[in-house]
Amino acid sequence: MAKERDHHPNKDKKLLVGVIWNFSTELKLIFMALLVIFTLATLLPFIPSSFSLSASDFRFCISRFSPAVPVNITSTAVNVTPEKTSTEPVVLDNGVIKRTFTGHGSAAYNFVTMSAYRGGVNSFAVIGLSSKPLHVYGHPSYRCEWVPLDPTQDPVSTTGLKILTDWGYGRIYTTVVVNCTFPTISAVNSGGSLILHATTGDPSLNLTDSIPVLTESPNSVDFDLYTSPEKKKYDYLYCGSSLYGNLSPQRVREWIAYHARFFGDRSHFVLHDAGGIHGDVFEVLRPWIELGRVTVHDIRDQERFDGYYHNQFMVVNDCLHRYRFKAKWMFFFDVDEFMYVPEKETIKSVMESLEEYSQFTIEQMPMSSRICYSGDGPARTYRKWGFEKMAYRDVKKVPRRDRKYAVQPQNVFATGVHMSQNLQGKTYHKAESKIRYFHYHGSISQRREPCRHLFNDSRVVFENNPYVLDTTIRDVGLAVKMFEMRTIGDRLLRTRQ
Amino acid sequence: MAKERDHHPNKDKKLLVGVIWNFSTELKLIFMALLVIFTLATLLPFIPSSFSLSASDFRFCISRFSPAVPVNITSTAVNVTPEKTSTEPVVLDNGVIKRTFTGHGSAAYNFVTMSAYRGGVNSFAVIGLSSKPLHVYGHPSYRCEWVPLDPTQDPVSTTGLKILTDWGYGRIYTTVVVNCTFPTISAVNSGGSLILHATTGDPSLNLTDSIPVLTESPNSVDFDLYTSPEKKKYDYLYCGSSLYGNLSPQRVREWIAYHARFFGDRSHFVLHDAGGIHGDVFEVLRPWIELGRVTVHDIRDQERFDGYYHNQFMVVNDCLHRYRFKAKWMFFFDVDEFMYVPEKETIKSVMESLEEYSQFTIEQMPMSSRICYSGDGPARTYRKWGFEKMAYRDVKKVPRRDRKYAVQPQNVFATGVHMSQNLQGKTYHKAESKIRYFHYHGSISQRREPCRHLFNDSRVVFENNPYVLDTTIRDVGLAVKMFEMRTIGDRLLRTRQ
Repeated sequence: MAKERDHHPNKDKKLLVGVIWNFSTELKLIFMALLVIFTLATLLPFIPSSFSLSASDFRFCISRFSPAVPVNITSTAVNVTPEKTSTEPVVLDNGVIKRTFTGHGSAAYNFVTMSAYRGGVNSFAVIGLSSKPLHVYGHPSYRCEWVPLDPTQDPVSTTGLKILTDWGYGRIYTTVVVNCTFPTISAVNSGGSLILHATTGDPSLNLTDSIPVLTESPNSVDFDLYTSPEKKKYDYLYCGSSLYGNLSPQRVREWIAYHARFFGDRSHFVLHDAGGIHGDVFEVLRPWIELGRVTVHDIRDQERFDGYYHNQFMVVNDCLHRYRFKAKWMFFFDVDEFMYVPEKETIKSVMESLEEYSQFTIEQMPMSSRICYSGDGPARTYRKWGFEKMAYRDVKKVPRRDRKYAVQPQNVFATGVHMSQNLQGKTYHKAESKIRYFHYHGSISQRREPCRHLFNDSRVVFENNPYVLDTTIRDVGLAVKMFEMRTIGDRLLRTRQ
Repeated sequence: MAKERDHHPNKDKKLLVGVIWNFSTELKLIFMALLVIFTLATLLPFIPSSFSLSASDFRFCISRFSPAVPVNITSTAVNVTPEKTSTEPVVLDNGVIKRTFTGHGSAAYNFVTMSAYRGGVNSFAVIGLSSKPLHVYGHPSYRCEWVPLDPTQDPVSTTGLKILTDWGYGRIYTTVVVNCTFPTISAVNSGGSLILHATTGDPSLNLTDSIPVLTESPNSVDFDLYTSPEKKKYDYLYCGSSLYGNLSPQRVREWIAYHARFFGDRSHFVLHDAGGIHGDVFEVLRPWIELGRVTVHDIRDQERFDGYYHNQFMVVNDCLHRYRFKAKWMFFFDVDEFMYVPEKETIKSVMESLEEYSQFTIEQMPMSSRICYSGDGPARTYRKWGFEKMAYRDVKKVPRRDRKYAVQPQNVFATGVHMSQNLQGKTYHKAESKIRYFHYHGSISQRREPCRHLFNDSRVVFENNPYVLDTTIRDVGLAVKMFEMRTIGDRLLRTRQ
């Protein structure tokens, strides 16, 4: 071989070039092939087509084969819509001009996810928003799929039951709770993902968005929570509605001190900040957060989606499902409202007497937030807490006043603002002798002294409206102040309106 | 060199391998670099990001540099929305739980294009649909851009004036006419494209869909159309609303024969088929289509988009702008309505007398479509044409009846169903002595004999409603039948209800 090479020194060069050429040809071929493939993949989303590819579909496929990839890291929904220019109509053989119509962009999302929670051994709840006209005029539907992490197990699928809790109230968006109850999920606690398949607004294209909403790692679920009626972490959990506007820190301070005392140690308060928990309000909550009595959820990002009153229906449903197995009772009312049980009762005795009910509604005592009781003299009155001085109750006869309510959340599938209409078990509407709430409407969202007029009488007519002096809540004032001092010290003494 | 090689035969091998290695290393590097670039490009749409890329933006950029590419071949709107999982909230340093909300898919398009037309030297109209709640609750806006084909010329941009013609009527979609009037378009008739930039439904993301709506090739525009008040192709053009349902072929036959005679040779009828021009109806139109008197637009595809009554507002606006410079007058009324001028007048004399007005409205004569005049005896009555036998006019006093209208379309920017509110010039509402229309409500959408009861009297009370015999239209029957026979022969003699 060496000899041959000796005789053909140029042949080597040729060979050398030839080998490189052959090598690089192969590389070029491979390179070109990959170039074509990637170019196609790159251009795919921009090619007009009559079928739709959703990124979540892709990811979903991937997740089936590589379950270690968490399917819910991203959830895109890139729909490739078939697009044609509509300005050059086609004339058909019979002379008819065939007109076409082309949709562009998105005016509203098909589904906005807030959260998804397990609601039992075979059950989940998905909480979010969806386009209101889609639900009012269209026929959107939901399908749930449970994809086990273990690739040898088949995914299971079920029809999602949609619950519209704020029917008629939303604007661009309406709150949707999807209940996904599977006939069975075979391998419990081996991990998996819940996919929500949501039909979109163009029925002709039959598009579906596949949204990974929940991922469980193996052995991450405590199934005892759903199967054994054990003692819950809390006896009473307060789910607050969206807080917004320039709230009064002093009023919030009074509200939380009153109710932390009222509901006792085994209670917890979940507040939702839609802009209302500004710096000064946060300061009055901070001691209670540090004590573990209060949790604040920052939900300001929901403002992007125009629903009903800062999407309060979505928020209370998130709260319901998030804490559903952590509390025996859940209360839904506002931060200008004060719960009350008669002196001979305690919240514990009242709630035990209502245990047979899944839900009870609570009667309102409407209080004026503009006229005040000056029994202590004007100077001292202004230094009193709000519920001490706003002691005149509106006694005008009206057909019906709004109610608030409490539920045993395990029996509830979705909730509203004034009551839940999606629950199992009985609802009780005659608890007024056991529990009521005092409503200081308009008192919380102003930062100046609320009292406009001071009175001393037990009966007052103000602006043609009859009021009576009602010191029910006022009378608890001292006890609440002492409770606050004992619990968090004097940190909030300098709180302003 | 050869000698050296002779002495180092193995060095060649090393050299050979080395060269290949070096070459392939470089190729590998290039290959890897391209692999990374294309992979990135491929994955780009799926990567969560806070900015948006629209395919139409891409195409628009491309179109700037290669104007030979027609920008309106496709118009996709792939919005890359930032997506995160919302089920794992972040706990902030202060203990607050930060919640996130993620939009998926599309419930309604931002804009659905039907058409775009030039409306003058510097002016265009874009006709389409947009999401109704977006317009009711949001603040969508439009910007128009004219991109000259000549790449040395700069694009010009202007604010699009949106006209909502069916405010309050739509369901998921509402009709939008965008008027794009540029301060100037420099190089007239050198070709270009009109791009509509439409803001979308998520203001936080500030997404805009850029939609190519019209492309003109060089010298394709007849600017004389807009500058000189020449004689138009038609004196009278009828723009029909969306036709749907099981329409009666015989009634349509009667309507078209009547109006082809009424408006005369220099008129044209544009009908819009939203499903109503089924096979039998098409047969009665066919002779008139063949004569060039009727044009049918197949608009069945708009059913995908849930607007008001088969999107009739979009359809009449398309008709207005499509034929705006082809007709002196345009009429807007329905196919169960018959125009009439007094015997001493002609349509020509009437329209000349109204020439100072841009628009006039037309009073309704409501006719019963259930009780008939049997002046010819029952057997002969049933063989009469609809407007011959339905001769009883409803004379119940009502505050106001719907009107129909006609316009000089050059002065009109958008139109409605009962009148235009977007025009320049005067509107006249007192033309009842000159022109009226007879309305046979309910007669067109049934395919059986309309007469339920026959009467002979000149005054009738039927179901507590007073009627009088009014043979105004009936009296024209013979003339219309002879006109039809003379114009298209006996092809339609065997038409059924």
